[in-house]
Amino acid sequence: MESPDQLKPIDISKHSKLVADWDSLQRIFIRPEDEDCKATLLKYMEQILFGLHEFLNSHVGVTEEISLLNLTETYKETLISSEPEKKLADVISDIISSIAPRAVNVASPYFVGHMTAAIPFFMVHLKAIVAALNQNVIKLETSKVLSVLEKQVLAKIHRLIFDLDESFYQKHVQSTDTSLGSFTTGGTTANLTALWVARNHFFSPCDGFEGIETEGMAGALNHHGFDKAIYLVSKRCHFSLKKAGGILGVGNKHVIPVDVNAEYRMDVSKLSKMIKSFSKSAGTSGRKGKTAIMAVVGVAGATETGIVDPLYEIADVCREHSIHFHVDAAWGGPVLLSEAYAGKLAGIERADSVTIDGHKQFFMPMTCGMVFFRDPKIMDRIAYYSNYVNRQGSVDLGIKTLEGSREANSLILDSALKIMGTKGYALMIDHGIETTRAFADEIKKRQMFELVTEPELNILTYRLVPPHIGKLREKAYDRKEIERLDGLLDDINIMVQRKQREAGRSFVSRTRVNCAPCRENDHEVVVLRAVIMNPMTTIRVLSEVLDEQEKIYKSISHEEA
Amino acid sequence: MESPDQLKPIDISKHSKLVADWDSLQRIFIRPEDEDCKATLLKYMEQILFGLHEFLNSHVGVTEEISLLNLTETYKETLISSEPEKKLADVISDIISSIAPRAVNVASPYFVGHMTAAIPFFMVHLKAIVAALNQNVIKLETSKVLSVLEKQVLAKIHRLIFDLDESFYQKHVQSTDTSLGSFTTGGTTANLTALWVARNHFFSPCDGFEGIETEGMAGALNHHGFDKAIYLVSKRCHFSLKKAGGILGVGNKHVIPVDVNAEYRMDVSKLSKMIKSFSKSAGTSGRKGKTAIMAVVGVAGATETGIVDPLYEIADVCREHSIHFHVDAAWGGPVLLSEAYAGKLAGIERADSVTIDGHKQFFMPMTCGMVFFRDPKIMDRIAYYSNYVNRQGSVDLGIKTLEGSREANSLILDSALKIMGTKGYALMIDHGIETTRAFADEIKKRQMFELVTEPELNILTYRLVPPHIGKLREKAYDRKEIERLDGLLDDINIMVQRKQREAGRSFVSRTRVNCAPCRENDHEVVVLRAVIMNPMTTIRVLSEVLDEQEKIYKSISHEEA
Repeated sequence: MESPDQLKPIDISKHSKLVADWDSLQRIFIRPEDEDCKATLLKYMEQILFGLHEFLNSHVGVTEEISLLNLTETYKETLISSEPEKKLADVISDIISSIAPRAVNVASPYFVGHMTAAIPFFMVHLKAIVAALNQNVIKLETSKVLSVLEKQVLAKIHRLIFDLDESFYQKHVQSTDTSLGSFTTGGTTANLTALWVARNHFFSPCDGFEGIETEGMAGALNHHGFDKAIYLVSKRCHFSLKKAGGILGVGNKHVIPVDVNAEYRMDVSKLSKMIKSFSKSAGTSGRKGKTAIMAVVGVAGATETGIVDPLYEIADVCREHSIHFHVDAAWGGPVLLSEAYAGKLAGIERADSVTIDGHKQFFMPMTCGMVFFRDPKIMDRIAYYSNYVNRQGSVDLGIKTLEGSREANSLILDSALKIMGTKGYALMIDHGIETTRAFADEIKKRQMFELVTEPELNILTYRLVPPHIGKLREKAYDRKEIERLDGLLDDINIMVQRKQREAGRSFVSRTRVNCAPCRENDHEVVVLRAVIMNPMTTIRVLSEVLDEQEKIYKSISHEEA
Repeated sequence: MESPDQLKPIDISKHSKLVADWDSLQRIFIRPEDEDCKATLLKYMEQILFGLHEFLNSHVGVTEEISLLNLTETYKETLISSEPEKKLADVISDIISSIAPRAVNVASPYFVGHMTAAIPFFMVHLKAIVAALNQNVIKLETSKVLSVLEKQVLAKIHRLIFDLDESFYQKHVQSTDTSLGSFTTGGTTANLTALWVARNHFFSPCDGFEGIETEGMAGALNHHGFDKAIYLVSKRCHFSLKKAGGILGVGNKHVIPVDVNAEYRMDVSKLSKMIKSFSKSAGTSGRKGKTAIMAVVGVAGATETGIVDPLYEIADVCREHSIHFHVDAAWGGPVLLSEAYAGKLAGIERADSVTIDGHKQFFMPMTCGMVFFRDPKIMDRIAYYSNYVNRQGSVDLGIKTLEGSREANSLILDSALKIMGTKGYALMIDHGIETTRAFADEIKKRQMFELVTEPELNILTYRLVPPHIGKLREKAYDRKEIERLDGLLDDINIMVQRKQREAGRSFVSRTRVNCAPCRENDHEVVVLRAVIMNPMTTIRVLSEVLDEQEKIYKSISHEEA
């Protein structure tokens, strides 16, 4: 057979007048043979690797001072040009000069507001490999070894979580009819997948009922005589769980929060009581009022506080009542790689399913999520087949996934694990946790600040409390007066956070948490939130962030005075 | 403030004995300043760009002859090494020597079996840029200009589909409280999003009802006195639509196929009759038996046949009955870029929502999907807010999406549109459609083959029919005899497809289609399926594919004789 570059396409004559002519189009598909052309392509890659880098060095924080309004004004053209507008070289230099400086420098050590931070530079190489191979792991026919590798990587992380014995993994790692989990887009679809599986497992097919996947939510409730079906979730869980309840036809009001204790962890005695009260309501009347509890969800590394729910105790309760126990460890999961701190997630091995994000503490580029199941057969409940792919009995990975076409993200994770080992990852995890502790100490030392949530992993929340307000707040007993003072503090913290973000040197995020979560009628207050995952973020950097916040506050109060 | 590379992390002493020591870890986060280091990193990128390329040149089809069983044997270790195993350089050369040759060469012109093919080489550069910037477009605070750009790109594709007037786009392109669509992982989640929105729109909040998203499927049916809620979909639609029905709690048996006519297009008169019969059942009894039709789904470029449903006529029916009309144009959408063939999608502009995949005929790397809505307010039905991001009133793009964290894929599509223009894309689209026509002619010319589905776009199905069986089949009137002969042909085609795939020189896929779709009790037959999107796939390549199939058949029948 001929090699591709000798081929001539049919009927090119009528296109010959176009700028985007057939010949030049073909060239973009044939990877180049001649050295000049190769050198040019490589030069572009050099610009990408180091040109974007120059921007990253010269900016910290949330970049250049251009208002959003001004920015939007320049992105309003909505017609696609019919003629080619730019060459690759121009596109790249435009991105370097106009896009990158107006993007957010998430790699800055001073960017400690969100769960997106610096990634090791080799991640860019690995992502480029995945793009160059362009495999689609939905099916073996478009991925072959990458499907096999994906199963292996899933088994590795499954083992990290559940730590079952070698024979279990030998049996399932490459088994074509069982699944230890799946890659997803991210934590949101991983959680959605877990709750989908749990829903379908609860309402499995049985005599006279084809299962909820076929018959729908209403059919399932009717068949079993349930009034409603619910999920019980930690009050501090990620909003994707509520969203999952909405998507799955459960109704997001049936994603019911379980109260937390003073440490912002799920209150297990309350969980227990809730389960019993839902069970009690069953059977009091002849047919209605029964509630199906499809799953309980605990969090390992809450988005806003970094807190880990008491997983071991929740597992006890779930096992007692035979309820599916899902752990959202999107953030905290990789802490299992650290010898020093893995114990913080004790009990996770007793879960039925676990979410972990690749693009968070595995330091992978956007986006990669994963979900794992203890029972290698439970994903059968979400299997879909088709005639052209994913045929019954095939090993196609797309049979039991929420998503369809997927890139070979397992290659990135597998390579990163080989390059760094668990010890390499542990260094980063440990640094994050220890730096956050040091930061908490620093906050407590300063008169101007109040630590709101103690760090369990590498997230904490705090707020700026000017001493004169702090003193009044301490003395206040009247509920209204406390709320008035907290309202003042809310305004101050919102303004400080915003001004710091606009100044563009550093960035913390803000959110709202209950200031005394276990008290009745407690109110929420605005807090500043720091997520410390970047190995370059040191206590010195964090002190500077606090210094700047104090300075901003002083300038505000000066203005007001 | 200090620049990052002057910073020293805290407490490194205890890690000093590890191979993965703190210093070397830090180095992987600091992009290098010295020329040697830069040169090394660039060399790796050169290997990726051209080393993988060497493999691509030396293999066509589905790669090296290693059995799946042998392959799985080498990917069974499930313990993660605690020490780093390999340097980046070794990881890359391992991938080049061991992974790439066992992956599938989807870029080969002889790989015409699936919707994954060669992508322009600049796509690798663009993907590397996205990884290097590592923005998260879930929120403005981790993406800034990339959120703004995403809105612009969505508006461009919206305009390509719906072609509303300039004032509409000026109003909405950067509007913070309206959405023209969203990026998704792919067609599956785009379709899921569309059906989710349609479900929620149908069961919007009203007096005494908080909406289906809050109250769930059962609550929604109860409130409105419906017996069930359904989607009506083209019989040839992608299996993701059935899956969406399952996920959404509708029940996948309520995703009801509408029969197709002799050309495999949705039979609009049957659609009309179905809608009327579902409406009729309402109100006959006092309260039950009513059916809610939440959406009708047409296909523009069916996965297996490439057929486009009669979109204009379906839109008429949907408007008459005020039903949401979704078009799954995951495959066919980019045909709108071709002046010559855009007319094939006439009527798509009358849809309420449209799915288009980026990683299919926009030639983007895995993975990128998109979904668009005519009504810029309808996505409000799936809005979720949170305290730490996606606050009410913010412009965060994660408020109205199925997925959470997302990479900035809009930058890739935007750049590609600038590099190629609509004319560049049109060249590829036209080539695909015209080459597929020529291929159909070639199949018809050959005695050994039968064209099963005529190409409308760039997909066709055919089967190998040895003349001696073909003659019997033509004469056969008895149903059992026809089925017996088709059974023989099924076996032959399955074997030929498998042997050709295993030989590794070229690849067509196989599926099953009804051989006379509009007849009652028609049966399915196995067909070979060709998807022609690679600009390097010429009629000459395709003739060789047929030659090889004939040769394989002859060797089989020789063996059997």
